[in-house]
Amino acid sequence: MRVSGTVIADSSTVIEDGCVLIEGETIRTVGDRERLAEQYPDHRELTTDIVMPGIVGGHIHSVQSLGRGIAEDCELFDWLFDYILPMEATLTADEMAAAARLGYLELIETGTTTAIDHLSVAHADRAFEAAGEMGLRGLLGKVLMDRRSPDGLLEATADALAESERLIQKYHGSFGDRIRYAVTPRFAVSCTEACLRGCRELADSYDGVRIHTHASENRSEIDTVEADTGMGNIHWLDEVGLTGEDVVLAHCVWTDDSERELLAETGTHVTHCPSSNMKLASGVAPVVDYLDRGINVALGNDGPPCNNTLDPFTEMKQASTLQKVDQLDPTIADAETIFEMATTGGAKAAGFDRLGKLKAGWRADVIGLSTETTRATPLYDPLSHLVYGARGEDVELTIVDGEVLMEDGEVIVADADAIRDEANDIADSLDLEEARENAQRLKP
Amino acid sequence: MRVSGTVIADSSTVIEDGCVLIEGETIRTVGDRERLAEQYPDHRELTTDIVMPGIVGGHIHSVQSLGRGIAEDCELFDWLFDYILPMEATLTADEMAAAARLGYLELIETGTTTAIDHLSVAHADRAFEAAGEMGLRGLLGKVLMDRRSPDGLLEATADALAESERLIQKYHGSFGDRIRYAVTPRFAVSCTEACLRGCRELADSYDGVRIHTHASENRSEIDTVEADTGMGNIHWLDEVGLTGEDVVLAHCVWTDDSERELLAETGTHVTHCPSSNMKLASGVAPVVDYLDRGINVALGNDGPPCNNTLDPFTEMKQASTLQKVDQLDPTIADAETIFEMATTGGAKAAGFDRLGKLKAGWRADVIGLSTETTRATPLYDPLSHLVYGARGEDVELTIVDGEVLMEDGEVIVADADAIRDEANDIADSLDLEEARENAQRLKP
Repeated sequence: MRVSGTVIADSSTVIEDGCVLIEGETIRTVGDRERLAEQYPDHRELTTDIVMPGIVGGHIHSVQSLGRGIAEDCELFDWLFDYILPMEATLTADEMAAAARLGYLELIETGTTTAIDHLSVAHADRAFEAAGEMGLRGLLGKVLMDRRSPDGLLEATADALAESERLIQKYHGSFGDRIRYAVTPRFAVSCTEACLRGCRELADSYDGVRIHTHASENRSEIDTVEADTGMGNIHWLDEVGLTGEDVVLAHCVWTDDSERELLAETGTHVTHCPSSNMKLASGVAPVVDYLDRGINVALGNDGPPCNNTLDPFTEMKQASTLQKVDQLDPTIADAETIFEMATTGGAKAAGFDRLGKLKAGWRADVIGLSTETTRATPLYDPLSHLVYGARGEDVELTIVDGEVLMEDGEVIVADADAIRDEANDIADSLDLEEARENAQRLKP
Repeated sequence: MRVSGTVIADSSTVIEDGCVLIEGETIRTVGDRERLAEQYPDHRELTTDIVMPGIVGGHIHSVQSLGRGIAEDCELFDWLFDYILPMEATLTADEMAAAARLGYLELIETGTTTAIDHLSVAHADRAFEAAGEMGLRGLLGKVLMDRRSPDGLLEATADALAESERLIQKYHGSFGDRIRYAVTPRFAVSCTEACLRGCRELADSYDGVRIHTHASENRSEIDTVEADTGMGNIHWLDEVGLTGEDVVLAHCVWTDDSERELLAETGTHVTHCPSSNMKLASGVAPVVDYLDRGINVALGNDGPPCNNTLDPFTEMKQASTLQKVDQLDPTIADAETIFEMATTGGAKAAGFDRLGKLKAGWRADVIGLSTETTRATPLYDPLSHLVYGARGEDVELTIVDGEVLMEDGEVIVADADAIRDEANDIADSLDLEEARENAQRLKP
């Protein structure tokens, strides 16, 4: 297959009238369109305006998609205990599958080809199946919560770890190794020391299994951990084994100098989620400082209840402009830096090699965008357009592992209307009352 | 004409299965769809998902549209003196017309029906004609710059004022009073005292003519004014007559307590431009404080070179979430507040009565949005969806003064492809070298 257009192979390589030649699951070569057309005339050609690597979503809650817009303008604990946890506790297996499909549909439609996906406590199998069947690449994990958690989410430590291990054995490396496993404790506040240490042991027992959790998103969280352990949150995570090159920490808004040093020393990955941090008023993560220290930073949309979209393009713009205004410097977090966060930064965090650039021998995760719109007129620089001007709505072609998931804006691997209809039906009948009563007892 | 859907008549009025009945330029009534269909069976029905008042863009630079993406990640003075001023100085009359058409096309496509539009020094006639012909409502003004300005933009004070008066006489109240005039000095830095005082005199000489300028957008600007006058910028503007109920000040990021008090006392309107303030690293305007003081705040996209879009929906989201993260409070700048800024707040600033709500007897400026998308699934609350979830791309119907400008996503009043093609052609051949050399001599 030949994918033709202006090729943004990586943050510093733009090929006008370019082409990405895909054979099987791999990019065979990237080069001049005419030359490759002559050389490989029998390969089908897909034409678009801009061809780029598929985006890696560094922190996603696909199964929260049914809660898009359910809790606006709330205090954080109202948001969490009145809506989000009750919703996760209430959804049946079929509803969780529908929620995951809705999330993955949006990822495919808007250009995210790999998701580091924080599922829920129950029914994780259904999300693994949905991601695998819909053709996405992902690092997914069932959530562990063994304290300070409402009924329906709270599990005994041993049960949570055993269920995680069952899922590792079933799904890690599944679907042609597109789907891999991350052990996913929710955050230090809702996990005991035994649970967190067990997560590290579990990850170490299986080759390639990683760890993904929330860390230092807001001040009440770090205060709680400090009260529990006498330590800063990142130091505590380090103490129990949850730092390192196989660990992805979402948010890291509130970290002190010693914690940042620790993140850098241990090679821990940080996922920045600017839209979520803005809407939930968490704070501004010190992303430029992290990058200066050599910390790998990925970019994530978090979940639809706090964003309200999984569009990675508006997230890129947000990541750049939030740093600029916070530091009062319009030159920082420039287009190249942000593009790398959303591609190679995410790929490193997810642990897939040969991912995040369009290069010979690399994985064929490729997206195509239209520029036939007023918002892309005129178009002086295609790379900065992707960061500041493009929208998920511009994505018209999505390819993962050489398989076309969306072409000409039509999703091929799923029935988009059916997924939306099912989600709307579930939302219409969603009754959170009982789960909300349970959860509210735990509200600080 | 009947426009049917879920009607958001204002920030506190939602009518499911509602209808807006339009006769001529006016809304005759708003109510139940079935009832109005029975009562007015001969009126054509247009159906959409969400019906709402057209957005009022409180600070727009339509003619900067040709500079979308031309200057990314720059220091502010590089942005201004290397790109923006040279571009404004270089464009011919035909190119200025093309730039304006591109801007107005984007407004129509994304749901802004009234623009408070900061034009350029030269060729303003062409923008007035374009706005009028394309059916928009607007408060437009030619820019005055009589010092610290490059060749091609610098004018003698008397000439700048005389040209403004000629345009007032020609266009104020034109196109069925859809188009009105705002005297538009660029900002205090590039205007002499005589010019600023002349602007006030001119505005006072013509009924309904207003004043629109930039104020206190960034720190170097307020430092310059302080050095020039020994006064804070808002105090200086007040001194020369540029505060009051007929004055719209864009940005107002850097104001002290006494200046805010002055804005409140004088009834001066402030237009908040969050995306621009973020990308140019200007700072975070104290919007919630302004609202608490009773200052009317409108919302604006500023220009494509600093945004990069004129989409008012992403601007609403930005306005809310930037305040939340800045104040670390997720409950402030809520959906209702932001919706009002983008509708009634803008209408007050623009000075058009009966504008910004869907009410019997009010002006028939109405837009319709689709919710048949993944990003609108599920949809718990249509009002908060408009602020946090909707996109300009969702707008499929745009009506101003009862005239349909766009229907089913197709712009009727202009050839969208031709406008985009022309803009791309001009951008391809744009040569800023000479104007840039002129402008750079003035760079601080």
